[in-house]
Amino acid sequence: MRLFDGGRAPNPRRARIFLAEKELNIPLVPIDMGALGHRSDEIQSLNPLQRLPVLELDDGTVITESVAICRYFEELHPEPPLFGEGPLGKALVEMWNRRVEFHFLGPVSTAFRHTHPAMKQWEVPQIPEWGEANRPKAVEFMSLLDQQLATNTFIAGNRFSIADITLLVSVDFLKPARITMPDELINLRRWHEAVSSRPSAKA
Amino acid sequence: MRLFDGGRAPNPRRARIFLAEKELNIPLVPIDMGALGHRSDEIQSLNPLQRLPVLELDDGTVITESVAICRYFEELHPEPPLFGEGPLGKALVEMWNRRVEFHFLGPVSTAFRHTHPAMKQWEVPQIPEWGEANRPKAVEFMSLLDQQLATNTFIAGNRFSIADITLLVSVDFLKPARITMPDELINLRRWHEAVSSRPSAKA
Repeated sequence: MRLFDGGRAPNPRRARIFLAEKELNIPLVPIDMGALGHRSDEIQSLNPLQRLPVLELDDGTVITESVAICRYFEELHPEPPLFGEGPLGKALVEMWNRRVEFHFLGPVSTAFRHTHPAMKQWEVPQIPEWGEANRPKAVEFMSLLDQQLATNTFIAGNRFSIADITLLVSVDFLKPARITMPDELINLRRWHEAVSSRPSAKA
Repeated sequence: MRLFDGGRAPNPRRARIFLAEKELNIPLVPIDMGALGHRSDEIQSLNPLQRLPVLELDDGTVITESVAICRYFEELHPEPPLFGEGPLGKALVEMWNRRVEFHFLGPVSTAFRHTHPAMKQWEVPQIPEWGEANRPKAVEFMSLLDQQLATNTFIAGNRFSIADITLLVSVDFLKPARITMPDELINLRRWHEAVSSRPSAKA
């Protein structure tokens, strides 16, 4: 089994943090996305969508999409549970993971890809007006996150979950996207400091 | 328990089809999205993101995001399994569901929201150039779908799953988005005919 990894980009990092939380060591194959390594023939043959990470099993079966890769490991190694417990717990982790993906990681990535000069060859056509339109969406969503974290230790409740991993890689992507977290969001800041200090955050 | 429903839009329909496949009857509260009913104080208080569907449990707990709502019912009523079986089966359903969401439903919805005159009050700012840029992405992804369906009855393998439901609502949204399925995609057409003839497709 080997995991084709894409370095600092949010999705590859998401999978690595998940594996670190599970204390699993999976052989990594580093791919240099800066040199467009994810568009090589090798990656294209594994994932026609040319996205990373990609998990290749020993029998050649390929799993793509970071959350699908994480779910595979959750099923094989249920402890600690990172997708929630019980019907309601699992639903709330799914809900928050998706809220963060669609309403925060999406806008942050879009701002980055549609305004950063280095992204011109990735995002064709690059539409700066669309990138700019996403910055206020990301800022607005942070208020909802702050509210939720006023009464919950972690984003989906009182237990660390994959939704926190998705949120961490998104918050850490604010800087390249040139979006600032408002000072008054003290709950979000408290959460970010706590989650960043977990050993898995270095993965 | 009641499900605030949004009519013909893809995500509310996804939840209804899922419930029909499970043969579950959940009381529906119809919300007229055409009249911006999803922006009412009632919906805003249940879901600050003003999106439908919204599931409200008897104790007042709220679950949003259609896939999170579906997962809640999958956990409560595992038969028939619609999120896959076993670690690999579950991972492949998650993978295909996400591939379809990010690379097909996303572009189709974006084309609709950023080019349709009626969407001007929904999507602010509406950027027609961005809408147009998404049409070829959706068309290109249909070739990958067709390839997968050349050797699989359903999109994630030989068993119907939530990934087929996501794909069905996406294909049926091509028309309002003014995107045409290429004639030569015979496997995708065969799949669409088969899935559309299931009783759940009318939900």
